[in-house]
Amino acid sequence: MGDNDPDYGQDDETLDELIIPDFECYGVEHALTQVVLCEGGLTLVFDDHSSHRVPHLWLREFSPDAGTFHTQTREQRIALTDLPEDLTVSDARVAPDGFLEIQWHPEGLNSRYHPGWLYTSLCRSNDPLEALPARNLWPQPAPLPHWQDGAAVYAGDVEALRVWLETLHRDGVSLLGGLPADPAVIPGIAELIGPIRPSNFGDVFEVQSLPSSNSNAYTAIALGVHSDLATREYVPGLQFLFCLQNSATGGESLLVDGFAVAEQLRNECPEFFEVLATLAIPFGTKDRQFDHRFCAPVLEHDGSGQLSTVRHTYWLRSPMHADFDTLTTFYAAYRRFQTLCNDPDNQMRFRLSPGQLMAFDNRRVLHGRDSFDAESGARLLRGCYGEREELESRLRILYRAERARRQQSA
Amino acid sequence: MGDNDPDYGQDDETLDELIIPDFECYGVEHALTQVVLCEGGLTLVFDDHSSHRVPHLWLREFSPDAGTFHTQTREQRIALTDLPEDLTVSDARVAPDGFLEIQWHPEGLNSRYHPGWLYTSLCRSNDPLEALPARNLWPQPAPLPHWQDGAAVYAGDVEALRVWLETLHRDGVSLLGGLPADPAVIPGIAELIGPIRPSNFGDVFEVQSLPSSNSNAYTAIALGVHSDLATREYVPGLQFLFCLQNSATGGESLLVDGFAVAEQLRNECPEFFEVLATLAIPFGTKDRQFDHRFCAPVLEHDGSGQLSTVRHTYWLRSPMHADFDTLTTFYAAYRRFQTLCNDPDNQMRFRLSPGQLMAFDNRRVLHGRDSFDAESGARLLRGCYGEREELESRLRILYRAERARRQQSA
Repeated sequence: MGDNDPDYGQDDETLDELIIPDFECYGVEHALTQVVLCEGGLTLVFDDHSSHRVPHLWLREFSPDAGTFHTQTREQRIALTDLPEDLTVSDARVAPDGFLEIQWHPEGLNSRYHPGWLYTSLCRSNDPLEALPARNLWPQPAPLPHWQDGAAVYAGDVEALRVWLETLHRDGVSLLGGLPADPAVIPGIAELIGPIRPSNFGDVFEVQSLPSSNSNAYTAIALGVHSDLATREYVPGLQFLFCLQNSATGGESLLVDGFAVAEQLRNECPEFFEVLATLAIPFGTKDRQFDHRFCAPVLEHDGSGQLSTVRHTYWLRSPMHADFDTLTTFYAAYRRFQTLCNDPDNQMRFRLSPGQLMAFDNRRVLHGRDSFDAESGARLLRGCYGEREELESRLRILYRAERARRQQSA
Repeated sequence: MGDNDPDYGQDDETLDELIIPDFECYGVEHALTQVVLCEGGLTLVFDDHSSHRVPHLWLREFSPDAGTFHTQTREQRIALTDLPEDLTVSDARVAPDGFLEIQWHPEGLNSRYHPGWLYTSLCRSNDPLEALPARNLWPQPAPLPHWQDGAAVYAGDVEALRVWLETLHRDGVSLLGGLPADPAVIPGIAELIGPIRPSNFGDVFEVQSLPSSNSNAYTAIALGVHSDLATREYVPGLQFLFCLQNSATGGESLLVDGFAVAEQLRNECPEFFEVLATLAIPFGTKDRQFDHRFCAPVLEHDGSGQLSTVRHTYWLRSPMHADFDTLTTFYAAYRRFQTLCNDPDNQMRFRLSPGQLMAFDNRRVLHGRDSFDAESGARLLRGCYGEREELESRLRILYRAERARRQQSA
């Protein structure tokens, strides 16, 4: 749809009537055995004796018919306010083919629901079509760098791409070697996943020591392990750093699993973990042309209580407002967190060579570098950001294509 | 820094020694009168009798010296772990010029703190350099559309830009007329604020009725007021829609202040507000090449408890998992929310003409359109997304430049 989006978006296949497969893509693990009308809804019973009571609207708004879902976009065409306030069921039964059949009153609409879709939507806590590789926290000592063949990924090998992306999702980092030392690798590789996340540093940035710099990254000083762009409400979930030149003395790369370190801190001192997880601290961009500010805890949790982000561009913090005791605990906790990050047992350390690329989850895995001697040689990395949710989306699309291939060959 | 970022980023001014102004940009409202050493820190007293006790590290890590802050990047060069664990103060006093002077032990470093920076950082709940226009919720009936001259904004008039951006921040919508009906207006106008937020629809998208569509937006059907991209963890904060052609019958535009409607719902039925603010509901992208999924409440609140986002691409919801009573309450609440959104008293309604642009806060102001007759004429909008935090940043930079001008002319 976009004029500068050749790689993803609409393809040419016929899109008509694609709503039906959306509802019939689940296997039938358990047959629907019974449907019982009740006040305000229906109770559905499956052959594993699980039973669920749902409001009329729950079923009505997902009726897989072309009036409810647009056959091309597969999106709902209706709002709740398009449905009758006095909606009820005039007939409901389990059809001989196992589908739930409902006639709606007063609409007169007949809806047929696939039993696999019903069971998944009602009885499973997770949609299998949403499943992704589980996260593995790094052990101590940290794993050694493992370099996957990048040429296959860059050439579009789907299996190589899948391995690369699963590693990135599971371990928070995925290293590629053997790429051409060509600036086009960034953005090319990143766009295999999804759109590039722009920032005040542009879509693509070059990390090198500059005489006039708007970021510590663009100097030759050491950078302790950190995440980038902590001053943003939404910290970029992916970062790609690609080495074009590295003949300077120094400048070794460091990676640390921030989630694993947070877990170590929690085990060692729950009070330290707690203050880092709850005290919102202010961050601010120092760029001359940008002034982003955001307050959030160093260890952010998502709506389900899972640690989701380590916000740790530690040199972009502003003075905190809190009482003396809270501040004192915070400083002790944050220092301890950083001390654990500095423990060689938590660090993956390596020297990037031209043609090597590191992709990592910038909300989980912290990155840093030793200082380097800018006079001794050239050090040039090319990088960009992406989003964790684009990685998740790309993996689901790869799995979806794999399922389609298997179904076709079956 | 980026290779495709000509408009923002590093400029050519001399950057050396810019850390000092960072700490001396606040006026001295209240003089520092006394400094008292205490266990683990210092107590600072100002001439309005406010008194604050801070840990040593609070002061030490913001020492405005070139060893602590990089003179070019203005970013801290130190981590907490670079500072002595046994840090204390060997001398502290209020200097004759009102600065706080501290000699640190065992480092021997001498630090001088500006009293205005100290007062702001310790005693004010808000940093005046962070201040932005307050949000005004829309009254009932909704305001009539107000069209600002877009030509001045597009031509780079700083004052016109400021007015446009302040309106957008305050009201959640800011309309421009009189622009050339030129596709380059998008992205040109959007990039006056900051980088464009890409999506599965590209950087720039075109809204028109297409025979083969991956979104309800790209059909001719009516769209009830909604926010875009509810399937993303971070819903885009800004949306720009620019009219290039509009000769089709129908297709009137609608805008609704979702924050105002949420407030109406809260006043009318706190239980309805509560379920929309707390029940995380699943959303999913239906694009063939993307499969984003995210669970969040329709009414999302930020870390400080303020309503921050109305997540309401209502046709991209997936089946909810919750007990019968919660679902029943949710459906009643969500229907009522949508009914309030459909109330003409809450709607700004107008017909876009070629050369008119609407910018709105996509996390606050909902947008929609009537159905149109694609056979009756052409309807073509060109749009893109941005971020609320880029709007905030741009406004702060405009204010910063204005302060600099005033200081220079004073």
